[in-house]
Amino acid sequence: MGEMVRVDHLAEERRKAQFDVSAMKVAWAGSRRELEISDRMARIVASDPRVNEVTVFCVIKIVSFFVEEEASKLRAAVDEPCYMDLHWGMFIPAIKGQGTDEQQKKWLPLAKKMQIIGCYAQTELGHGSNVQGLETTATFDPKSDEFVIHSPTLSSSKWWPGGLGKVSTHAVVYARLITNGEDHGVHGFIVQLRSLDDHSPLPGITIGDIGTKFGNGAYNTMDNGVLQFDNVRIPRDQMLMRISQVTRDGKYMVSNVPRQLVYGTMVFVRQSIVQDASVALSRAVCIAVRYSAVRRQFGSQKGGLESQVIDYKTQQSRLLPLLASAYAFRFVGEWLKWLYTDVTQRLQANDFSTLPEAHACTAGLKSLTTSVTAVARFLMKTVSSLASGEPPVGTASYFARAQHLMQCNCEVHNADDWLKPSVILEAFEARAARMAIACAKNISKTSGLEEGFSEFSIDLVDVAVAHCQLIVVSKFIEKLKQDIPGNGVKEVLQVLCCIYALSLLHKHNGDFLSSGCINPKQASLANEQLRSLYSQVRPNAVALVDSFNYTDHYLNSSLGRYDGNVYPTLYEEAWKDPLNDTVVPDGYQEYIRPLLKQQLTSRAARL
Amino acid sequence: MGEMVRVDHLAEERRKAQFDVSAMKVAWAGSRRELEISDRMARIVASDPRVNEVTVFCVIKIVSFFVEEEASKLRAAVDEPCYMDLHWGMFIPAIKGQGTDEQQKKWLPLAKKMQIIGCYAQTELGHGSNVQGLETTATFDPKSDEFVIHSPTLSSSKWWPGGLGKVSTHAVVYARLITNGEDHGVHGFIVQLRSLDDHSPLPGITIGDIGTKFGNGAYNTMDNGVLQFDNVRIPRDQMLMRISQVTRDGKYMVSNVPRQLVYGTMVFVRQSIVQDASVALSRAVCIAVRYSAVRRQFGSQKGGLESQVIDYKTQQSRLLPLLASAYAFRFVGEWLKWLYTDVTQRLQANDFSTLPEAHACTAGLKSLTTSVTAVARFLMKTVSSLASGEPPVGTASYFARAQHLMQCNCEVHNADDWLKPSVILEAFEARAARMAIACAKNISKTSGLEEGFSEFSIDLVDVAVAHCQLIVVSKFIEKLKQDIPGNGVKEVLQVLCCIYALSLLHKHNGDFLSSGCINPKQASLANEQLRSLYSQVRPNAVALVDSFNYTDHYLNSSLGRYDGNVYPTLYEEAWKDPLNDTVVPDGYQEYIRPLLKQQLTSRAARL
Repeated sequence: MGEMVRVDHLAEERRKAQFDVSAMKVAWAGSRRELEISDRMARIVASDPRVNEVTVFCVIKIVSFFVEEEASKLRAAVDEPCYMDLHWGMFIPAIKGQGTDEQQKKWLPLAKKMQIIGCYAQTELGHGSNVQGLETTATFDPKSDEFVIHSPTLSSSKWWPGGLGKVSTHAVVYARLITNGEDHGVHGFIVQLRSLDDHSPLPGITIGDIGTKFGNGAYNTMDNGVLQFDNVRIPRDQMLMRISQVTRDGKYMVSNVPRQLVYGTMVFVRQSIVQDASVALSRAVCIAVRYSAVRRQFGSQKGGLESQVIDYKTQQSRLLPLLASAYAFRFVGEWLKWLYTDVTQRLQANDFSTLPEAHACTAGLKSLTTSVTAVARFLMKTVSSLASGEPPVGTASYFARAQHLMQCNCEVHNADDWLKPSVILEAFEARAARMAIACAKNISKTSGLEEGFSEFSIDLVDVAVAHCQLIVVSKFIEKLKQDIPGNGVKEVLQVLCCIYALSLLHKHNGDFLSSGCINPKQASLANEQLRSLYSQVRPNAVALVDSFNYTDHYLNSSLGRYDGNVYPTLYEEAWKDPLNDTVVPDGYQEYIRPLLKQQLTSRAARL
Repeated sequence: MGEMVRVDHLAEERRKAQFDVSAMKVAWAGSRRELEISDRMARIVASDPRVNEVTVFCVIKIVSFFVEEEASKLRAAVDEPCYMDLHWGMFIPAIKGQGTDEQQKKWLPLAKKMQIIGCYAQTELGHGSNVQGLETTATFDPKSDEFVIHSPTLSSSKWWPGGLGKVSTHAVVYARLITNGEDHGVHGFIVQLRSLDDHSPLPGITIGDIGTKFGNGAYNTMDNGVLQFDNVRIPRDQMLMRISQVTRDGKYMVSNVPRQLVYGTMVFVRQSIVQDASVALSRAVCIAVRYSAVRRQFGSQKGGLESQVIDYKTQQSRLLPLLASAYAFRFVGEWLKWLYTDVTQRLQANDFSTLPEAHACTAGLKSLTTSVTAVARFLMKTVSSLASGEPPVGTASYFARAQHLMQCNCEVHNADDWLKPSVILEAFEARAARMAIACAKNISKTSGLEEGFSEFSIDLVDVAVAHCQLIVVSKFIEKLKQDIPGNGVKEVLQVLCCIYALSLLHKHNGDFLSSGCINPKQASLANEQLRSLYSQVRPNAVALVDSFNYTDHYLNSSLGRYDGNVYPTLYEEAWKDPLNDTVVPDGYQEYIRPLLKQQLTSRAARL
């Protein structure tokens, strides 16, 4: 950790660990090189107060002084959302994915040197996920060879784009393309928003910041914005024309590049969201595990020490599945990163075959509960094409064994059988397949496909969740087939993998039981095994969160300190609060004293 | 609502309602009188900006100008936590419950006139739920006839008490009573903290505020505090002596009043927490239902209006069970209020028979997942005493029919059978009884009771949850047996009751299936019925949240406005943010311009 630690209140916990923590740090980071860079960047951020002073200032340095890999790790270590994320994460990728070669040649160098700063203006006040419902228009004017960008209504105001509120000079704006009075649907346009001389909004453009966001304030460093266009003109060549074109005379032409290419940017964003989720979860788990080891409550024998909270089974049943999930999400995130790179390379070579599945599973994994319709549709399509003999692809390839999965019996006779990866995998595959096929059957009985999708949408969500959980479980199992060096590292990861799978099985045992994938006896054996796995992972808990290699600076938590010195820290922090600058509070004379002395003023009586 | 509404964007929704909203308002409020008072107080708060200006100021008025019932409704309408809650809600009840008659006579008038302000100093930095583990000491000094209150360690500092940080002059302090070198465990003492002349802490007392709280800031109006004692002396008669006494010569004596009396205060607080939970949930649901009716997304036919989000089954499956829960919690809260009053009256008459069950079920209902051990222990005790023929009491009386519940078959053959209250009730009773009895069996096989409780604590939590859910379902069903006036009011409440029960049954179908209370076919019929119930309640959704009778002022939400005029409100609110006071942001010259112009200064290069 590199921090000066006088007393390590968690030393005893660390002595209990049964694996090589430094090797686990490598496994978590992905490679020794990535660990080394992350570690170095985290130290820079922790040691130089200026870096955190002003995010904007720090990001200037990212761009100027670090290579890309270092910059992205430094960005992660700084841990404050800012406009830069949208510039690099969406503005540039959108131009890369949807711009023609000439457009890329013109705009990318400007953007990469940050001579312009861009954002991604898609969402409108009245329109979010349904991109096809956007109202902003881009009408081609053949006289001037320009597009006129316009916000026809209040609800068409762009709303939410990060980086828009205060910083961006440009945006990729999504608007309905209209040529010769015909609406060709939503397309992307590069629009300059602010003067490069004095940063004032260009004529016809109204920009503001949408203000503070609901919640704990973590996103308030981002200048999410609002934007309206009053007939703003841009040259024709600022429409992103890789997928479709408008010619000089206003003719609309579609190239043979599929429209789904637009999803490419979203695939990137979603895979980063999965990565970010694993970081956020691991950070929370790190704090919770350390504090649960420090905190004692109940269970003391006459004046002795109370029990560590982490030793309670109920606490373990909440904490350890989350610890296992942090590792599971980390490994599935790693796989998604590979998937994205693979899809991108294929797209560059005009191979679009893997895009639909990548689109579906990044959407599903992005959240196991929201916007999973894409996954469900993809699965229903997979089920319906089973009859044709067409082999299912990618993460859906288990459907090739649908016949077996529909009738297989779970081979669990005692609790230890639940430790076999093949048994776990088959149970999850059978559950996902049976739920998907049952749902497809129900839909096929309705009057029409869309009606069926609507009527059974709740079940479709459950189907998608089952599929996505299977992906995470199977990627964890695949990871464990690889070489993972370090004493005891693979062993403890195997325990975590089983905890992840069996805690899911417990949580969703209604699915497994009602589809007959397991019987009540097997469900109860799974719980028995889970209890035993909790005991096995318990001595490794603190070392497993140490393996995330987070500095105290990054965790920024009194409860989650590396040295476990929780109480003095909490106590000292409290006294720093400005409320403690005075002993007798402001307002005593005005409000408290008159109350205590029963001298309410006439002012108080006027209500 | 009484507000000036020009255009009602939800008028169409309100026209659809199939019940009498004003009658439902009465059913929600509890009585016409309570509705009238709540409504009046909400208007006072909404119309007089001074009331919200400073909570302290407003509370002065509560005390001075309103009768108690009005004061509590006004407090609810102001909706900001403050020290007053602890003074009235814990300090006074603690003295009432644990003080002798003389102590009550001395302290209650001072407290009720607010000539002193008190808080409840129990929790310590190192000790929360385990009250018996507290470290603060109260050592009797027979020479001076005083107790010496002392904080021997850092972790013994009182930590969290609301009202302590800045306002309270007194506290009920919990400390280990020591007489003649013997530790008699934790007792309550009335301790003066601050001077009544100038509000400065008395000698030997250190007080501070613990600062801002994690989360969305809702609790930052409360002055949660930290407190240390350095050998602070108080007269002997400031120990709360109803339960046990220390005589002039230091003898410790226990009266025949049971120790659980201490729980009386907690029972009160917990029942208020259940009430508050129903308020918080109903408020969130009100905002979510209205916005879901305003918001449209997807599903448009060529340029037509998109579908209202509330019409999606997936949205209904998330929203409507919560709407049903709001009503369910309201009614169970009403029952708990009755229970508390009943227990209190019995306690005054030295009848302690109903306290253990009240303690157990308020703890369980307070949270369906935390601190439910009490419930589980109570249930295990109930199960073990079944053999003795002793009839189980209160909410556990269904155990009298344990034999039947262990073997009964669910009588559901088609989806409509799930509408019968008797069928629902029996399924929930059978599930709770079977889980409790199975758990008791497992525990009986372990080497000792405490080991068993520890080993099966996860199952015990599930048992407690099953029992508490049964309570909520059965209280909802009982409510529907009462007379509920108003056109269609009872009918729509019946639909909500079934939604509440069947959505729980769906969520926990693993419990119901593995214990054989229902079979997979019946689980699927329950889902079918649930889908149909969602459609039935859909047209009433907006009217059902209107029935909470919340003013826009109280909701304080752009999305949840009564008139549904969401987008213009969001838009206007955004522009009020101080960030929009300037068009070109502060920091442009220093940070953004040098970046765009590639003129990074040497200052930036020093990193």
